[in-house]
Amino acid sequence: MKFTDRIWNRVEDIWNRYLEHPFVSGLGDGSLNVDKFRHWLKQDYVYLVEYSRLMAIGAEKAPDLATMNMFSEMLHGTLFGEMALHRKYAEMFGIEESELLETEPSAVNTAYTSYMLNHAQRGDAAAVAACLLACAWSYNYIGRALADKHPDQNNNPYKQWVDTYSGEDFSELNGTAMTLLNELAEGKPERELAQLEEIVVKTSLYEYMFWDMCETKEEWPVKFK
Amino acid sequence: MKFTDRIWNRVEDIWNRYLEHPFVSGLGDGSLNVDKFRHWLKQDYVYLVEYSRLMAIGAEKAPDLATMNMFSEMLHGTLFGEMALHRKYAEMFGIEESELLETEPSAVNTAYTSYMLNHAQRGDAAAVAACLLACAWSYNYIGRALADKHPDQNNNPYKQWVDTYSGEDFSELNGTAMTLLNELAEGKPERELAQLEEIVVKTSLYEYMFWDMCETKEEWPVKFK
Amino acid sequence: MKFTDRIWNRVEDIWNRYLEHPFVSGLGDGSLNVDKFRHWLKQDYVYLVEYSRLMAIGAEKAPDLATMNMFSEMLHGTLFGEMALHRKYAEMFGIEESELLETEPSAVNTAYTSYMLNHAQRGDAAAVAACLLACAWSYNYIGRALADKHPDQNNNPYKQWVDTYSGEDFSELNGTAMTLLNELAEGKPERELAQLEEIVVKTSLYEYMFWDMCETKEEWPVKFK
Amino acid sequence: MKFTDRIWNRVEDIWNRYLEHPFVSGLGDGSLNVDKFRHWLKQDYVYLVEYSRLMAIGAEKAPDLATMNMFSEMLHGTLFGEMALHRKYAEMFGIEESELLETEPSAVNTAYTSYMLNHAQRGDAAAVAACLLACAWSYNYIGRALADKHPDQNNNPYKQWVDTYSGEDFSELNGTAMTLLNELAEGKPERELAQLEEIVVKTSLYEYMFWDMCETKEEWPVKFK
Repeated sequence: MKFTDRIWNRVEDIWNRYLEHPFVSGLGDGSLNVDKFRHWLKQDYVYLVEYSRLMAIGAEKAPDLATMNMFSEMLHGTLFGEMALHRKYAEMFGIEESELLETEPSAVNTAYTSYMLNHAQRGDAAAVAACLLACAWSYNYIGRALADKHPDQNNNPYKQWVDTYSGEDFSELNGTAMTLLNELAEGKPERELAQLEEIVVKTSLYEYMFWDMCETKEEWPVKFK
Repeated sequence: MKFTDRIWNRVEDIWNRYLEHPFVSGLGDGSLNVDKFRHWLKQDYVYLVEYSRLMAIGAEKAPDLATMNMFSEMLHGTLFGEMALHRKYAEMFGIEESELLETEPSAVNTAYTSYMLNHAQRGDAAAVAACLLACAWSYNYIGRALADKHPDQNNNPYKQWVDTYSGEDFSELNGTAMTLLNELAEGKPERELAQLEEIVVKTSLYEYMFWDMCETKEEWPVKFK
Repeated sequence: MKFTDRIWNRVEDIWNRYLEHPFVSGLGDGSLNVDKFRHWLKQDYVYLVEYSRLMAIGAEKAPDLATMNMFSEMLHGTLFGEMALHRKYAEMFGIEESELLETEPSAVNTAYTSYMLNHAQRGDAAAVAACLLACAWSYNYIGRALADKHPDQNNNPYKQWVDTYSGEDFSELNGTAMTLLNELAEGKPERELAQLEEIVVKTSLYEYMFWDMCETKEEWPVKFK
Repeated sequence: MKFTDRIWNRVEDIWNRYLEHPFVSGLGDGSLNVDKFRHWLKQDYVYLVEYSRLMAIGAEKAPDLATMNMFSEMLHGTLFGEMALHRKYAEMFGIEESELLETEPSAVNTAYTSYMLNHAQRGDAAAVAACLLACAWSYNYIGRALADKHPDQNNNPYKQWVDTYSGEDFSELNGTAMTLLNELAEGKPERELAQLEEIVVKTSLYEYMFWDMCETKEEWPVKFK
């Protein structure tokens, strides 16, 4: 059994709850309020800055050149591919690049990226791959589930979102993330596998909280001028 | 002006809100529900494990032996002093050491320690000192404010809490944390000082959320089997 | 004064000694023994693997997205540009990729990359930029000095070496390294600038020892079965 | 088989060569030139500063509180026990604390500590334990071998050296280092064990080069004003 198969057993229920989440289902059928989507666009942009750091840490900690190349390709692809796409997409929704960059990460966003960056820095390359997994895989899972459920996306204002995350490029990125984790976790003792699994479960919870945060346009629960 | 004076101007309002928080005021006048306090005892114990890692990172990144010694003393004092005290105190409230260790950190607890550990690992020794500050200083601030407001603690079941955090040992620990930050931040350019200040402000928000979390005995907002 | 100007004053004498080194002057006039060059090709290849990790650490620690992009471009350029060139070049000298990858780094090579990786991991993004500088800048300096001294490179078997390191692409890479350091060091207090300068001086000594190591085809001073 | 038994098979020959080294045998029979010993005292002092950072990294990366406590005890013991002893010992040989602190680490010293700190920062807690091992264990091995060979140390000016490293306290420290590595390496896949073993072999080579460096009172092979 691949390690990602073991992980699937742990996260399947959580991820299926994503599909029932109003924000996610609203992306699929086009019913999502546009201001909520704008909240996602901005929060996800600053999320990607921190998420990219994970790939850099992976390249730093890679046990060999081939693994270093894989993390480095992901980093370059995210910074110069996915984020450029994001900027163009945001523009279509009336958000300038400067506004994206000035976004203050919400409490949930900060918690999520801090959690990953802490474990990636403290752990080995397998921990880095575990941190990357839930975001890459679950977005691909959601994208494909939405495309399956709503094959005709022509009238969906979020068609491009569904296309991107169900598409080939993103499926390939996710494939790389899965391969990296399976290779780096191979043969590790149970106490280390359990810790890697825990990282994927916790980041899966954070993904749910991230959808909630976008649905409610939440920022920080406490505010001080 | 010392850097901690500049910081005080930013955090004073937040910290004064701690004093009005029902959990904190309940510690001072003894009205706090004992189950809420038990929640704090358990969550704070696992918090201290992660908080101790910060001091270890400080020792690792210290620019010279004298600074390394200071971080190392704090680490040893926390692991073998404060945490032993904590275990004894927990026992008085019917909590065994094993129960303390098995505590799953709540969402807010995880967010708070992840935030600090991320910045401590990514930054230099000054960033580590900035991460340590809010917890050490604000507990000392609260302890002293409660002791001032309620000079007669004899009938307070939380007398020992007030004594500990207003007492000499803890004031000294806090003094060390302040000295470390002031020395390590000395002469840094504004963009770096602003980043250090941001760390103290964010950890001050997390402190508030931590009190809230104890008041409501919150764990994780989403639960899956 | 730019910080790199201050640094120049410290390293000028060391770098001019490179130009007098028999390995380096032999590259310029073509008199270099081909086995010594093969030693360089192999040692430099495994050096580049570790040197690339520095750029990944830079991307991880970058204070903002623009800086992250710069480090990430350098990383990608080194892994997929310079190293591909290196493999092709090695092939011309009869060295297969597998032989490059199996090279055991010599004692001096290990010391040099370990020194940089230690400081890059422990320090902030400015320390990472300081670690990158001597190699990028001094190779560019050497390449240009050799091209100036020997304008006609047609009969030089190492023409491509001189062309590469005096050429536009590599000059640009070096320009990026200099810009990064100047920006990240801007306004730092003297004790931190002195530490950054020390990194560049020490790596400049290691560069000299690296040339020596190639000249003598040295591996490890002690050998055990 | 314990992992340290496997390691013993790899390092036994190297370590037995230490015993034949003139510096080491001169420590045992008292014939060592006192200036060479002063060189060791100064170089070892600044070595210990960096070696202590390893223990701090261990505490940072420890998978649980018990392991964190062990690394933290070692750190505290080294900084406040072994180094205080070192200062007293240096004073007997006419070296003030200020002179110890101002010692510039030699090329071999810098290479050795950089190597360990690089791997400790990049790796997990098992890598940190592997980095610590050769110094702790081989000093204990040498101390005990010298005490066995020269049971009457009364006329040996280096009696205290032999006593310290063959004594109970240091044997215990070494026991902790061995236990940590065995526990943290338990069940790891072969590719990771091989990497840990490589760290112990390389640090064993550095130990040999360190004795050589003290014998020749070497500093840096290249000198620039």
